[in-house]
Amino acid sequence: MSKIQVAVVSYGNIGKFAVEAVNAAPDMELAGVVRRSTGNNPPELADVKVVTDIADLGKIDVAILCSPTRSIPATAKAIMEKGICTVDSFDIHGEEMLKLRRMLDETGKKHNSKAIISAGWDPGSDSVVRTLLKAMAPKGLTYTNFGPGMSMGHSVAAKAIDGVKDALSMTIPTGTGIHRRMVYVELEDGASVEKVTKEIKADSYFSNDETHVLAVPSVDELKDMGHGVLLEHKGVSGETQNQLFEFKMKINNPALTSQILVSCARAVLKQQPGSYTMPEIAPIDYLTGDKEDLLKRLV
Amino acid sequence: MSKIQVAVVSYGNIGKFAVEAVNAAPDMELAGVVRRSTGNNPPELADVKVVTDIADLGKIDVAILCSPTRSIPATAKAIMEKGICTVDSFDIHGEEMLKLRRMLDETGKKHNSKAIISAGWDPGSDSVVRTLLKAMAPKGLTYTNFGPGMSMGHSVAAKAIDGVKDALSMTIPTGTGIHRRMVYVELEDGASVEKVTKEIKADSYFSNDETHVLAVPSVDELKDMGHGVLLEHKGVSGETQNQLFEFKMKINNPALTSQILVSCARAVLKQQPGSYTMPEIAPIDYLTGDKEDLLKRLV
Repeated sequence: MSKIQVAVVSYGNIGKFAVEAVNAAPDMELAGVVRRSTGNNPPELADVKVVTDIADLGKIDVAILCSPTRSIPATAKAIMEKGICTVDSFDIHGEEMLKLRRMLDETGKKHNSKAIISAGWDPGSDSVVRTLLKAMAPKGLTYTNFGPGMSMGHSVAAKAIDGVKDALSMTIPTGTGIHRRMVYVELEDGASVEKVTKEIKADSYFSNDETHVLAVPSVDELKDMGHGVLLEHKGVSGETQNQLFEFKMKINNPALTSQILVSCARAVLKQQPGSYTMPEIAPIDYLTGDKEDLLKRLV
Repeated sequence: MSKIQVAVVSYGNIGKFAVEAVNAAPDMELAGVVRRSTGNNPPELADVKVVTDIADLGKIDVAILCSPTRSIPATAKAIMEKGICTVDSFDIHGEEMLKLRRMLDETGKKHNSKAIISAGWDPGSDSVVRTLLKAMAPKGLTYTNFGPGMSMGHSVAAKAIDGVKDALSMTIPTGTGIHRRMVYVELEDGASVEKVTKEIKADSYFSNDETHVLAVPSVDELKDMGHGVLLEHKGVSGETQNQLFEFKMKINNPALTSQILVSCARAVLKQQPGSYTMPEIAPIDYLTGDKEDLLKRLV
């Protein structure tokens, strides 16, 4: 059986781990990596075809989009118009996600291609767990507690403040879906920690959360890609109260995101033309191998 | 919109909780309960149509089979041949489950009906979680730790031993998928606890597990329908080791089984003719309501 031909589009943190996960998948072949420029490739891409246009990779079954969220709608649409399936980790929940789903659904149906959007761990596998828990105990409260782990968006926001050379914003769960922000800043010479603290706390990224700012000599020394989730649900099955559920993980953040994108890259090929989120996918579709063999081991 | 017409087939513990869960579902209507005899109905069925033949209930969309596992294949087949969808909690894993799936798949395709088999929490929602975890970290070990909770099968086996008036076998997890059996027995007059202990430990239900037998004055006083699971997975995403996952629950056992059956009764109507296990179902299908609204809240 011929292997699934995969393109990895954009080569940042997620792209790097996606290449590893594609190489680890027995049913996939990395056709190449699409980058803005083909110069300055890191050594691990020495034997990988690197192009600036996906059309130069030959026949591609599925493109794993590892570019920033804001660029996803345009990138996904352009690739799906070529009849190539896409998976992405578009990470804006709510109305923006629905808008992307509608747009790519139309594109897919017109060009006979398929997309799984907002794939990763949240949105993504956490969304699947939340859906399953609602099927198990429809009434009740669900809390998604993130961390401890680095928030990319908050770190970038803190780094943008005047006087900050580098910043790391850690998300700390304090329960019931409430989070503390621990912001570690490396100051520029002469910058005042009091002034920086005040500005960070006033920023819209931080103003609604308990935020602590600490000056450190080196932010780089503190960085680690570990992250975690504790998803809690307490609810009612039928008329029976106090059904208790927890889903917990401690993971390397980009490695998990990329592995889920790769599993979705396999699943997307099994769908009808259109666009889907992970709760709309039958979980068995993520896996490779004989379906009966898998069910025998997993059911 | 007209409500889904549901029949509950067999009225034991699971059937009782299934009736409650159907009544709690805003999109369903309990058409009636099918029992071996219509006499001796408990008071809570006073306003419910009780029949011995499902045909007497009029148009039924889906039958929730709450009868013992051994009777499921014949019961499901007969009902599906009438073009009615079924859901069951057939709880034998492995080859027997595959055999049932194949048989009902053929029946469904011939009679334009659909089945979800082996629905409940294990097999069932645990199977979905195991499948999802394999998509998140394909390599590694998964342990399903059950309990503390009552094992129906083991309790019945212990009660069948000579000299035992009543028995309760509790499943106690000791980690890495290994379980201890704590067997509480109420002895008949003159029975010897030593002899009963020896026979229980020699029984094939117990001989492979660490088993402790304790004589108590009243078994009934100890019974409680609480149960639990701790599902652990430690694995590899791409090339990244030590990804850690846990799914834990503490639940009323028949209430959860019945609620999942009811959610599957909703999902089965959205499938193509044939037979499915829970990992083959898109999780969003378990829920009622506008799909975009649900995705907006859950993704």
